Amino acid sequence: MRSGTNLPAVGGYNRAVILDAIRRAGDGISRVEVAQRTGLSAQTASNVCRRLVDEGFIRETGTVSAGVGKPRRILELRPDGRFAIGIHLDPSVITVVLVNLAGDVVDHRSISTPAFALVERIIDRIVATVEDLIDSSGVGAEYVLGAGVAAPGPIDVTRGTLVNPPQLPNWNQVPIRDVLTARLGLPVVLEKDVTAAAIAETWSAEPGGSFAFFYYGTGIGVGFALRNEVVRGSSGNAGGVASMRVRTGGTRPATGPERIGDATLPRKVVDRAIERGILPELLAPIDNAVIQDAFLRLAAQATAGDGRARAIIDDIAEDIADVVIPVVNLLDVDRVIFGGPFWTPISALLLQRIPRLVRDSPHLVLPHPITFTEAAAGDDVAAVGAACLVFDRELSPVPAMLLISAKRA
Amino acid sequence: MRSGTNLPAVGGYNRAVILDAIRRAGDGISRVEVAQRTGLSAQTASNVCRRLVDEGFIRETGTVSAGVGKPRRILELRPDGRFAIGIHLDPSVITVVLVNLAGDVVDHRSISTPAFALVERIIDRIVATVEDLIDSSGVGAEYVLGAGVAAPGPIDVTRGTLVNPPQLPNWNQVPIRDVLTARLGLPVVLEKDVTAAAIAETWSAEPGGSFAFFYYGTGIGVGFALRNEVVRGSSGNAGGVASMRVRTGGTRPATGPERIGDATLPRKVVDRAIERGILPELLAPIDNAVIQDAFLRLAAQATAGDGRARAIIDDIAEDIADVVIPVVNLLDVDRVIFGGPFWTPISALLLQRIPRLVRDSPHLVLPHPITFTEAAAGDDVAAVGAACLVFDRELSPVPAMLLISAKRA
Repeated sequence: MRSGTNLPAVGGYNRAVILDAIRRAGDGISRVEVAQRTGLSAQTASNVCRRLVDEGFIRETGTVSAGVGKPRRILELRPDGRFAIGIHLDPSVITVVLVNLAGDVVDHRSISTPAFALVERIIDRIVATVEDLIDSSGVGAEYVLGAGVAAPGPIDVTRGTLVNPPQLPNWNQVPIRDVLTARLGLPVVLEKDVTAAAIAETWSAEPGGSFAFFYYGTGIGVGFALRNEVVRGSSGNAGGVASMRVRTGGTRPATGPERIGDATLPRKVVDRAIERGILPELLAPIDNAVIQDAFLRLAAQATAGDGRARAIIDDIAEDIADVVIPVVNLLDVDRVIFGGPFWTPISALLLQRIPRLVRDSPHLVLPHPITFTEAAAGDDVAAVGAACLVFDRELSPVPAMLLISAKRA
Repeated sequence: MRSGTNLPAVGGYNRAVILDAIRRAGDGISRVEVAQRTGLSAQTASNVCRRLVDEGFIRETGTVSAGVGKPRRILELRPDGRFAIGIHLDPSVITVVLVNLAGDVVDHRSISTPAFALVERIIDRIVATVEDLIDSSGVGAEYVLGAGVAAPGPIDVTRGTLVNPPQLPNWNQVPIRDVLTARLGLPVVLEKDVTAAAIAETWSAEPGGSFAFFYYGTGIGVGFALRNEVVRGSSGNAGGVASMRVRTGGTRPATGPERIGDATLPRKVVDRAIERGILPELLAPIDNAVIQDAFLRLAAQATAGDGRARAIIDDIAEDIADVVIPVVNLLDVDRVIFGGPFWTPISALLLQRIPRLVRDSPHLVLPHPITFTEAAAGDDVAAVGAACLVFDRELSPVPAMLLISAKRA
């Protein structure tokens, strides 16, 4: 059953709309312009702006004369008005960032994730890292709104746990959200990593966009937004594409990988390079750091012009294009964004091929152009998105906020 | 830039919320229950209900005693309070339905679509059919809110046209929406067929669902709803899955179809049956009716226990399951609905296999069960959905209605 709406809900929504308008205005905006851009009355805009100034979210930065009238006071976001912590729990490395209200990274730390370390020890290190990050930044703890955790799926949003994550088996059913809430003394939210990456993008981008964000990490996944609202799915697990089939054969044996998850798995890419004599055998123990290192070597060789290394990267380009086409057809997005730790080292090579493969395909059926870009937030994107999620829950206008006692889930 | 909200928008939204609550209550609901279920105040609920009675959308049907208090008056939807026309422009047959406010089909007509008929003649027949349907139903024209047209994609929602539809080449850029608006004297909306089918399902189903509707018509497509809101995509063309790859080989040659659109195309299914000697050669001229007829014969043979016919249907089951898995993984839906004219004749055979293939697949990664159902509206589903679209625009509560001057597109 849908809920109705009422005045308190309207007030909260309009406050978020106005803050969003000021945040996106960049170099300042007057109250009159705020009213114009949001369609709200001058009185409403003025009242809400006064409250936002009092709360420290925005500030006045001076005046501008507009012809004969009274000079207008200019408002802008106070980037240091509030902060949030973002934690990206990745199988290779844990990234912790402190992000300000403008979505900028104030500081960040990395923790390598030893494959066999106890989960309790890793949580201890995360907590110590967050506390150190806040302490050394000089930000008052009362200005840190909360922490977001981005983790590989599947996740259980009700319990705040990971559910049999293939790359993080030790984390199955660990109540990461509640443990961190208790240990950090902050509200903590849990989000799937690719969804967090998409949130980072909506936070940085012009609103109104519909996009699919292909995140190439230890696995490959898609975060997506439709009309600038990130889609979480019925259980917070939208974005699984690993099961999509790609072409077989080509330069690879006909019995080769059949699904994008296998075809692009860094371990398998590296193995293919070893089989073909492009990379030397890996030295045991083979953990995620060793694979990442080998992948970087392969990327460097391909970039330097080694034809055999290049052929392997070209296969990845074809495989990704093979999945981009059905995903954009299904979702009807007009923008494709790429990012993630395994995207970055081969970005230039992939961007030479993927857009053309997609655009030239007879299987692309949308009657509008598709643009291709890279993640605005770079390699920290999932961690930044997890932090933005904290702001998002407090400050971002989505119409669902208007529903009586609607929870943002 | 997002818009704010204001009181007129709130009023319209709450009216839609209340009508929706009454519609879904089925066998009647009191004003007190309306207030409880929507979270609105008793005063607001009462005022809105009075207006809905005056406008003829709902009626009082008697009273019920609840303990010691004053007996409560029971409200229910007036199914004959308003009507809408739904038109499904399919390559084989055009279906025209008159639907009442409860979403029930009052009457329907079929027009076969001769492959070589002039578009002008077909439009003449659609107009005559709509007028005949309204006349013979005895419904006053002033109670018909409008007409919805469901058509194969791609569509141009701005111009109200089809854009190079592969199965309806003559309809490219015909301004079908505006022509019908002028000829029928009714507001006309255009929607992609699979999206219309999904709308029919949200209109009939309990709200809150996230589902993917696999529509097996002359092509195969997916309409989907997330949290009971149908997703249209950035240009109204969401739902293309024809480009998704399926397994190659199996009982078919390794050089066989590689994508679901080819693998399940009725023409190709029939050709496969002819090649294997299961069906006789088709007699020219081979149009959609001939193919549909041959498909029905194949379905009947498979249903009767012919092992070779059954093998072809089993291939279709495997191909569809092969696409259901990545689609539910990507969208994180908890329900899969099947329907369409080529689904119905083999429904029992497919439902024996597809759910098990999906549930048993190691590639299904969602941490929740998936249910499988058939279209509630049967074979008229796209036409019914097109009619419901008309009601939807007027009467259905979506939070976007709350935005100032937001257009429902």
